[in-house]
Amino acid sequence: MSIEKIRDFVSANQLEFLDPLYTLLRQKSISAQNDGVVDCANLVMEMMKELGITTQLIETEGHPVVFGELMDPANTFTLLIYGHYDVQPPEPLEKWESNPFEPEIRNARIYARGAGDNKGQLVAQLLGVKTYLETMGKMPINLKFVFEGEEEIGSIHLASFVEQHKELLKADLVYTSDGSLHESGSPTILLGVRGMLAIELEAKGADRDNHSGNNGNIVPNPVWKLLDLLETMRDKNGKVLIEGFYDNILPLTEYEKQLLKKLPFDKKSVGEKIGYPQLEMSGETYYRKLTMEPTFNICGVESGYTGEGIKTIIPSTARLKMDIRLVVNQDPIDIFNKIKAHVSLHAPDVQVTYLGSMEPSRTNAELEVVKTVAQAVHQAFHTEPLIQPAMGGSLPNYVWTKILELPSVIVPYANFDQGNHSPNENIKIHNFLSGIVCTAHVIHTLGKVAREN
Amino acid sequence: MSIEKIRDFVSANQLEFLDPLYTLLRQKSISAQNDGVVDCANLVMEMMKELGITTQLIETEGHPVVFGELMDPANTFTLLIYGHYDVQPPEPLEKWESNPFEPEIRNARIYARGAGDNKGQLVAQLLGVKTYLETMGKMPINLKFVFEGEEEIGSIHLASFVEQHKELLKADLVYTSDGSLHESGSPTILLGVRGMLAIELEAKGADRDNHSGNNGNIVPNPVWKLLDLLETMRDKNGKVLIEGFYDNILPLTEYEKQLLKKLPFDKKSVGEKIGYPQLEMSGETYYRKLTMEPTFNICGVESGYTGEGIKTIIPSTARLKMDIRLVVNQDPIDIFNKIKAHVSLHAPDVQVTYLGSMEPSRTNAELEVVKTVAQAVHQAFHTEPLIQPAMGGSLPNYVWTKILELPSVIVPYANFDQGNHSPNENIKIHNFLSGIVCTAHVIHTLGKVAREN
Repeated sequence: MSIEKIRDFVSANQLEFLDPLYTLLRQKSISAQNDGVVDCANLVMEMMKELGITTQLIETEGHPVVFGELMDPANTFTLLIYGHYDVQPPEPLEKWESNPFEPEIRNARIYARGAGDNKGQLVAQLLGVKTYLETMGKMPINLKFVFEGEEEIGSIHLASFVEQHKELLKADLVYTSDGSLHESGSPTILLGVRGMLAIELEAKGADRDNHSGNNGNIVPNPVWKLLDLLETMRDKNGKVLIEGFYDNILPLTEYEKQLLKKLPFDKKSVGEKIGYPQLEMSGETYYRKLTMEPTFNICGVESGYTGEGIKTIIPSTARLKMDIRLVVNQDPIDIFNKIKAHVSLHAPDVQVTYLGSMEPSRTNAELEVVKTVAQAVHQAFHTEPLIQPAMGGSLPNYVWTKILELPSVIVPYANFDQGNHSPNENIKIHNFLSGIVCTAHVIHTLGKVAREN
Repeated sequence: MSIEKIRDFVSANQLEFLDPLYTLLRQKSISAQNDGVVDCANLVMEMMKELGITTQLIETEGHPVVFGELMDPANTFTLLIYGHYDVQPPEPLEKWESNPFEPEIRNARIYARGAGDNKGQLVAQLLGVKTYLETMGKMPINLKFVFEGEEEIGSIHLASFVEQHKELLKADLVYTSDGSLHESGSPTILLGVRGMLAIELEAKGADRDNHSGNNGNIVPNPVWKLLDLLETMRDKNGKVLIEGFYDNILPLTEYEKQLLKKLPFDKKSVGEKIGYPQLEMSGETYYRKLTMEPTFNICGVESGYTGEGIKTIIPSTARLKMDIRLVVNQDPIDIFNKIKAHVSLHAPDVQVTYLGSMEPSRTNAELEVVKTVAQAVHQAFHTEPLIQPAMGGSLPNYVWTKILELPSVIVPYANFDQGNHSPNENIKIHNFLSGIVCTAHVIHTLGKVAREN
């Protein structure tokens, strides 16, 4: 059986496989500080070339994308593998037990900045390709690679890159390995993200703060103005009252509902993690509200005097920031326009400012290709994967599903406690090796299904 | 006629009258910095003793009160004269055109810290007594004097002083000279102030800020909690919905309505002063809302992230400060309890904190004694005084009207542009001298009416 050959090869080569990983981990690539990023991109290119991948560095307005192709006209299916070679800054340095850019093994984990996020997973993807080639010979599907250098600073040029290279990026599925397996150790397949719209509302009263005694009841208070406006935007149960807000939301399918029910949920542990031990909801409700419903969150508000005691003023200005998570197929710009229209109607002198947005994305869990990947992941990890239709947060997944109109699966390889973005980031050696096996086996399984169709 | 004799005497002695004023102005008495306060109190005592006033320094927990009596068992009416000998700090010093503690005459004004607020008016009160004694002989009413040393730091011990010396302070009317004449130059009689209750509301969500994507819809947002609560406390027209909030408000009398109508109101000038040129209301509405109706003001609110751009969090805490101006006979503690009861009912986990309060006060404008003072002021200034039933701000006037249960009139002597609390504070020489005349003539008129009754 192919999976056994793959496993044996990985097992036999595990020490050797540390080499390319260590090479990348030793090379800084801190995108936020523009430290070593291009040097790292070149190392990734070299690694890919050694595997026979046709590779090029494609410039963007920011850090370059490493693009690669391993094509055979005989293959009918193309997999686009996505990852990133940039890392977070290592600070605070004093909290690291070893040098963040000199990998060290302790307790069967490799410690270094980027070990889990994302160099360990990127190298596992490449070594999966190597493993497949060396155990099975010819590649059964076409492969394309997009490794960007700006993920840790918000993938600021990924959308324009994808927009500009639609032809080059043509594929049948996008495959990302980033993030962590579930806390229980179960592999996870993530099919979507919530989108986001960030806005600021600013209400004005008088041109200056006024004495609340000498002018109280005379000048309007901008805080009350904002409050009155906000109460027209949302009812007490949290339902958003902006016309058309829910219009384009895709209802959950029966299958998605089943998937939500299967996701593990430990109320106590979640409650502790978020500092809200009184949390009271079922797992199904939790995942539905967290991943399949939009939010209408106020993330900041400021007006007047907020120090100790009291300052008796009528503030001149009140500012409030919202980040509104969106679900497919809500469009951030459409929602922004609906909010503007609502404000024009109810409080025309309140200013609405667009601060940023990201489109939501969700790949249909019932697609054949998703089931194929799930089966391969199951076999690679010896465990049935959890399939999560979407996550609560926002990532630029829409560049694949909206711009390229491709299905997208995220299959994380790193351990739950990888400590990404933190000191002592690590990847368990077991996870690194499982990632290699998984990549090779996913390639194999997709190839098998492609041949059968 | 007595008023002519008074005027002539003041006119003849104006140069000499500058002496005691200069003496006080040269003596620092900055209560906020405890600089020279007691030395100044002693100077005031000396001045009073020279007039034959029995004087004592009464200690408080803070700066002492200079108390004086000029009593004659034959008199049936007692006037309690109130003022303060402390001043604001002079900073910013570089903005003064002359030394703030070395009085200088320019353009018929005396410039010095305290010239208008309140040493110039306090000395005018004392020189009014001197003028009366020297022109008319025997004092026709009893006089008591309370000159405090903490007015500029909020009269923090005045209430306890009055509470502890109720017997000593027995009188028929309290007479204060502080503040400014109307902009038009008209003398003003102020009969009351709004009270105040300051509170803080604090709502809690989770124990810590949470990521708005990874936890959005799961933990409650304390800003929404506060907003929902506040909307139960007040309707969109500004009407307060807290049960019993308006219960004890004394309705305006017909006479008070007439007084409000007579108060000068220049919409354009008020609009410019408060930075709200679009102000649109009649003078009567302006004074009614500003002085005879309570407010429900939010003076500050803070939660979450308020810097540039966006931080996608669900804040753990939201804090909001209110100062609620009150009118007679709303009681701040009663209102506080009503707010607490309301919050207990609608958002029991929101914390309500008492930050401070002051009782409202309003002397009945139709009292005979008020009319007597108004008549005397009219004659002294050659102009009918504006009678304002209350001002928008809050002063501890209740110590006279509530603790001593006395009527209280405030008759300001300083010019409108005295620049109190600012650099280049001043009093017009004309205002200083008119204040002396006014004090003497008020004494005379009160004495005449007392004899007739």
